Amino acid sequence: MKKIPLLFLLIPILGFAQNSDENQLSNIYKSALTNSKCYSWLDYMSNNIGPRLSGSTGAQKAVEYTKAQMESSGNYDKVYLQEVMVPKWVRGEKETAYILNNKKKIIVPICALGGSIATPGKGITAEVIEVHSMEELKSFGTEKIKGKIVFFNRPMDPANVEAFRSYGGAGDQRRAGALEASKFGAVGTIVRSLAFRLDDFPHTGGMWYGDIPASQYIPAAAISTNGAELLSKTLKQNPNLKFYFKQSCHKEEDVLSYNVVGEIKGTEHPEKIIVVGGHLDSWDLADGSHDDGAGCVQSMEVANIFKNIGYKPKNTVRVVLFMNEENGGRGGDKYQELAQKNKEDHIFAMESDSGGFTPRGFSLECDQTNFNKISGWKNLFEPYLIHSFTMGHSGSDIEALTSTKLVKVGLKPDSQRYFDYHHAANDTFDAINKRELELGAATTTSLIYLIDKYGIE
Amino acid sequence: MKKIPLLFLLIPILGFAQNSDENQLSNIYKSALTNSKCYSWLDYMSNNIGPRLSGSTGAQKAVEYTKAQMESSGNYDKVYLQEVMVPKWVRGEKETAYILNNKKKIIVPICALGGSIATPGKGITAEVIEVHSMEELKSFGTEKIKGKIVFFNRPMDPANVEAFRSYGGAGDQRRAGALEASKFGAVGTIVRSLAFRLDDFPHTGGMWYGDIPASQYIPAAAISTNGAELLSKTLKQNPNLKFYFKQSCHKEEDVLSYNVVGEIKGTEHPEKIIVVGGHLDSWDLADGSHDDGAGCVQSMEVANIFKNIGYKPKNTVRVVLFMNEENGGRGGDKYQELAQKNKEDHIFAMESDSGGFTPRGFSLECDQTNFNKISGWKNLFEPYLIHSFTMGHSGSDIEALTSTKLVKVGLKPDSQRYFDYHHAANDTFDAINKRELELGAATTTSLIYLIDKYGIE
Repeated sequence: MKKIPLLFLLIPILGFAQNSDENQLSNIYKSALTNSKCYSWLDYMSNNIGPRLSGSTGAQKAVEYTKAQMESSGNYDKVYLQEVMVPKWVRGEKETAYILNNKKKIIVPICALGGSIATPGKGITAEVIEVHSMEELKSFGTEKIKGKIVFFNRPMDPANVEAFRSYGGAGDQRRAGALEASKFGAVGTIVRSLAFRLDDFPHTGGMWYGDIPASQYIPAAAISTNGAELLSKTLKQNPNLKFYFKQSCHKEEDVLSYNVVGEIKGTEHPEKIIVVGGHLDSWDLADGSHDDGAGCVQSMEVANIFKNIGYKPKNTVRVVLFMNEENGGRGGDKYQELAQKNKEDHIFAMESDSGGFTPRGFSLECDQTNFNKISGWKNLFEPYLIHSFTMGHSGSDIEALTSTKLVKVGLKPDSQRYFDYHHAANDTFDAINKRELELGAATTTSLIYLIDKYGIE
Repeated sequence: MKKIPLLFLLIPILGFAQNSDENQLSNIYKSALTNSKCYSWLDYMSNNIGPRLSGSTGAQKAVEYTKAQMESSGNYDKVYLQEVMVPKWVRGEKETAYILNNKKKIIVPICALGGSIATPGKGITAEVIEVHSMEELKSFGTEKIKGKIVFFNRPMDPANVEAFRSYGGAGDQRRAGALEASKFGAVGTIVRSLAFRLDDFPHTGGMWYGDIPASQYIPAAAISTNGAELLSKTLKQNPNLKFYFKQSCHKEEDVLSYNVVGEIKGTEHPEKIIVVGGHLDSWDLADGSHDDGAGCVQSMEVANIFKNIGYKPKNTVRVVLFMNEENGGRGGDKYQELAQKNKEDHIFAMESDSGGFTPRGFSLECDQTNFNKISGWKNLFEPYLIHSFTMGHSGSDIEALTSTKLVKVGLKPDSQRYFDYHHAANDTFDAINKRELELGAATTTSLIYLIDKYGIE
């Protein structure tokens, strides 16, 4: 008998494995596009529950709804809650603001930034100084800033193709603007909304006062991009104009809330855990359909697709809907605390928290070996137009998660439209495209299927 | 002196060329994202001019506006019109329709298909037979169809990732449904709108009667997807229900119209021509921002970007805004007729006519050698998330175009949302994202730059 090299014997087997993965991905995408529940789950969360800021009634209803849906689905071996104390910040009455230019009042749309204190009851009226960076702020110093409202007006850089890069590049103004301006005696801050588009929506988002004493806290609000353009233009004509704004937001006692967890026990390695999730809380101005209702229902869809295609994972798969990503990250921290306490072995964690738009690829937080392994599956994803495999941040809710060996991944949808809606009143269900949402669920499921089957290095 | 292999001498040169292309693409994308005019051109076309069906006042205004913009831009050596006689079809009064179920009238949204005849003045009332394919239609035959309205209700297949594939798979119902149903004595056809989404917009589009005698023409209308679902459900409850519809559309005499052409003379090979275009006409129900206002302004942006980055093409570059793609294709035919008459040498033609969404890649109509050459530029496009290089259809307006050696390409944007708007009343400017539009212009310009520089094989 002629000797046949081992390689040739392996080819049919490898070929079959590849073919079987191709079939399985085809089944996954077909299930998502023709037989999914994520769109109707999101419809309910967005249109029947609505905004879900931590500590709100909406957040509690969302916990109950998703838990009930997971339980009744029959997709899990176990559904449970993880208790977590979350901060409660309340916006109060709708904010008002105007530019006071030679006694003419020009009303502009603002909203308090999340975590900000209120203005005094009668509001704040003060002169405005426009700044574009923390360096410029410092160069102005107390002399020019004291007693004024600091207007942070550096736009998101339109030149980046990846919108998140521009968000990262402008975010300091929102997060730390009040903290820094307070040091020079400012009485308040108005921040240009973190959005590319010129429109009338103010975009909220988290801010903090760092370790300055509470007596030095100053109120912080976002102004719509159109409002920012108008204020800047009017300031050029009249540097002595005044700005008025009033907001009545406040912080209350921490509230008991929950992460929602659905678990499918692994058939071969039940002790090895794969996590997929999004965050259940949203900002309060809208129902957070993109941020991050989409990520929650896509994660729930993973279990639904596995049932539909008859796939039983070898490792334990946990769908986790984290609480409090927006203003505290307590859900993610609690998850890690419990994982550590219970000595759990997490091998893979994936988050979808960049909107429900057409998926483009994955942002991989791992070593080079695992990066190469996962990138090696590119050809499997090609038919579904998933091309982008890059090293990068995975997700806020899995940031705290650590384990002996752990690969973390963020789903990477198309980013161009995300900041049209992010943290604003128009992040609503009508901005969701059913197919784009489903394709994100299928892409997530496909990667989890491959990780479950082939493991990590 | 030690001999240095030729390859090593070449590396710095090749390296430099590659680097220079990288820089040039970077300049192109930056220009598009920070200094483009396409969005404001489209704003004007959509919101100040509006619908541009061939032969309409809107179409004529669009010819005049784009010609004037091209002329005043200083981007071209020559701007001119190509005369072309186009068909004129007029919708007339808004259509009405209802399901008549046991004397209960349920109003449903319809619109006449482009090219259809009117109903008699009092409308048509008849029983309905639902069919899902031409085969099923034939199997029913005259016996079951005569005197009835044929309701074509095969949805676009949601299982395809590429939306255009599903459009192709369902399009026969709209284009040839009336023609085929007429052969079995139907009195009219109602066609499910070619859209994935369940909503209340009827989507128009071209249909033809082939070579059946005019006496056998029957009126054809599209019904919204929600309307189709309702009609189908009601039919199951009551197969003898009747359907009423009335439309007063008609055809008028052909009208003189124009392709708009802007030309940049090539510095080295003025006789070699590169064409980039979209179609200026739209359907009449909306302003056609995606179909194909986007393609027109992206093509005009190519010349604007070349000026901004100081690039002078070696070959002649022509921006062509074709007339009458939607219901005749006369503009494309005329362009080819003149090219042939003038013995022009076209080397490359590119069309953007798939919406103004995030660009994903190119659909290449060429031989394998040129496909390999263009695909070889993938790495240059990678930073801009342009990944998809496939063989396929390029564009309707350049379909007729032939030359000794000619590569044809269609810009391939993300397709998931396109059919939410296509040919319907919601294809309006608010559905356009500025950055997505600009990225499409940059992607088009980049490919034209590379083709201009390196030629075709």
